[in-house]
Amino acid sequence: MNISHIEHIGIAVKDLQTTIPYYEKVLGLKCYNIEEVVDQKVKTAFFKVGETKLELLEPTSEESAVAKFIEKKGEGVHHIAFRVDSIVQALDECESKGVQLIDKTPRKGAEGLTIAFLHPKSTAGVLTEFCEE
Amino acid sequence: MNISHIEHIGIAVKDLQTTIPYYEKVLGLKCYNIEEVVDQKVKTAFFKVGETKLELLEPTSEESAVAKFIEKKGEGVHHIAFRVDSIVQALDECESKGVQLIDKTPRKGAEGLTIAFLHPKSTAGVLTEFCEE
Repeated sequence: MNISHIEHIGIAVKDLQTTIPYYEKVLGLKCYNIEEVVDQKVKTAFFKVGETKLELLEPTSEESAVAKFIEKKGEGVHHIAFRVDSIVQALDECESKGVQLIDKTPRKGAEGLTIAFLHPKSTAGVLTEFCEE
Repeated sequence: MNISHIEHIGIAVKDLQTTIPYYEKVLGLKCYNIEEVVDQKVKTAFFKVGETKLELLEPTSEESAVAKFIEKKGEGVHHIAFRVDSIVQALDECESKGVQLIDKTPRKGAEGLTIAFLHPKSTAGVLTEFCEE
């Protein structure tokens, strides 16, 4: 597969409104988009740092995977997303190499991207996402 | 402060030798450096993805902060490092804004960089590093 760069880093937070000021006022980054991703039960806030985005993820329901992550591990980095040319090809390659997939077929993510997740059991603990524009 | 990009993402792993093959053979990245950082009690392996590095961190002692991280949270993303123009200025700015510092003065990290850490209590759970070349 061809990974060009880290598209974004997903960060689980309890509350966007109390966390955005840290990223803006301390780190000097600019929140350029807030978006709800209904099927993932999260509200997201985006910042750009070089070629990579930081995506803050606030759960909108206790049933959200992000809420469960925070309950188990606390706030912190939730996933890393790699930009690939072809998600279908990347998933095929992973599956043929024995990697456990969360998404067998790509689905729609935030910011109009097509996405798919690999299972952290196969990736040394890092929840890993592929993104295609 | 002026953050240009994400210099690296630190990932805590139990064992470099079993994890490097996932990054190389599945994701197609190339490990270009393995280095021990004695004072942090870790052995590190580096991969380049666009402008950012992935830094795998294997603890070399049970006393290592990375060993304690793995014990508490499991393998996974350990910290995010931002590239800044001046660490001293960035630390001053953070301190003046009430951010708790782990390092009040910069110290030497892997790959010849000067580094300093902010405390995750002040950064919504993300252990945050500044790097200067």
